[in-house]
Amino acid sequence: MSDKSFNELLNWRYATKKMDPSKAVPQDKVDAIIEAVRMAPTSSGTQPFELIVVTNPEVRANIQKAASGQTPITDGSHLLVFAAWDNYTDARIDAVKQANINLRGDIPLIHQYYDNLKAGYVPRDAEINYAHAARQAYIALGFAMLAAAEQGVDCTPMEGFDPAKVDEILGLKEKGLRSVVLLPLGYRDEAGDWLLPMPKVRKSRETMVTFVE
Amino acid sequence: MSDKSFNELLNWRYATKKMDPSKAVPQDKVDAIIEAVRMAPTSSGTQPFELIVVTNPEVRANIQKAASGQTPITDGSHLLVFAAWDNYTDARIDAVKQANINLRGDIPLIHQYYDNLKAGYVPRDAEINYAHAARQAYIALGFAMLAAAEQGVDCTPMEGFDPAKVDEILGLKEKGLRSVVLLPLGYRDEAGDWLLPMPKVRKSRETMVTFVE
Repeated sequence: MSDKSFNELLNWRYATKKMDPSKAVPQDKVDAIIEAVRMAPTSSGTQPFELIVVTNPEVRANIQKAASGQTPITDGSHLLVFAAWDNYTDARIDAVKQANINLRGDIPLIHQYYDNLKAGYVPRDAEINYAHAARQAYIALGFAMLAAAEQGVDCTPMEGFDPAKVDEILGLKEKGLRSVVLLPLGYRDEAGDWLLPMPKVRKSRETMVTFVE
Repeated sequence: MSDKSFNELLNWRYATKKMDPSKAVPQDKVDAIIEAVRMAPTSSGTQPFELIVVTNPEVRANIQKAASGQTPITDGSHLLVFAAWDNYTDARIDAVKQANINLRGDIPLIHQYYDNLKAGYVPRDAEINYAHAARQAYIALGFAMLAAAEQGVDCTPMEGFDPAKVDEILGLKEKGLRSVVLLPLGYRDEAGDWLLPMPKVRKSRETMVTFVE
């Protein structure tokens, strides 16, 4: 693993505001971050999102325009777009069920579990289902940020963008997906990032944590 | 760090279905997991959630009743409850602004940033604000699960509970909080957990990831 402790990784990472456009993240490091996204746990194992990895400069420039011009999108080398399912459908949950059966065997409990899930999810409003799927993407976002830190790679989580425009740029609507959050990958510009020298602001443990003993 | 690689941690962890009630997680390991929650990044640094750490057996038994009797809640030694802000308010965002000023100085940009945030968030519907806060808690949930794995501690992320009942048991409503997700901590019962010997089911990289080059 990294020569940093887990605690050091928590402090080393920060939402990089200025990336060095001359440095690209090597493929093996990008792969390790993608693997963390793929392995992140999700509700009932549905993995209700996809990951779009954009390196194309023109596409990134277009996405940047839909994101208030935030520079890490183009100064970084890779842009991860987390895109959640726009709804839960029978077909999508059946595919999850089949993947379970393929690996674990045709167990009646698997059928029962996912048939119950379909009965619970599919009739719900699409917005509720999308919101649930988007939350799962945030678990994977957390995994991706820690995997990046472990690889010595910087990243910038971004909610500040126009999702409808990003969906259009990437053709997500046709795939039944909606963009949830962006994560450019790259390397910090140590001299140019105003945020880097600033102390990290976090609530105290006393403020944030209650013990019920 | 752990003697496991990051990739090994991703594979070692699983949603533990049966914990060994005879083994308690030591305080230093719980502290490391809490620290990961505290240091997790959130939108605009608001950290719009709190963490309730329940060890009290009676309280955990009551929560278990509101969670379909899931045994890790009482077989584990600690129950983490992620509780998000029920709304964004001027006072809450002002407290974040003040924490920034205390650490970074009284910079006009800080005022401007958080005043804009208040103007954008506070007039919105409380449900929209809660949903946004809950997403941030899921980043911290991801951080907590990886911190637990790094500590060799098992955990079980749980959405299957009655949030209104858990809010009542913990007195969250009075604090302007709503329970989002539960995470019991403990140690796997290697002989008793049906899920442990099962292969992990994840989508292939080809299914989940699209490259735009």
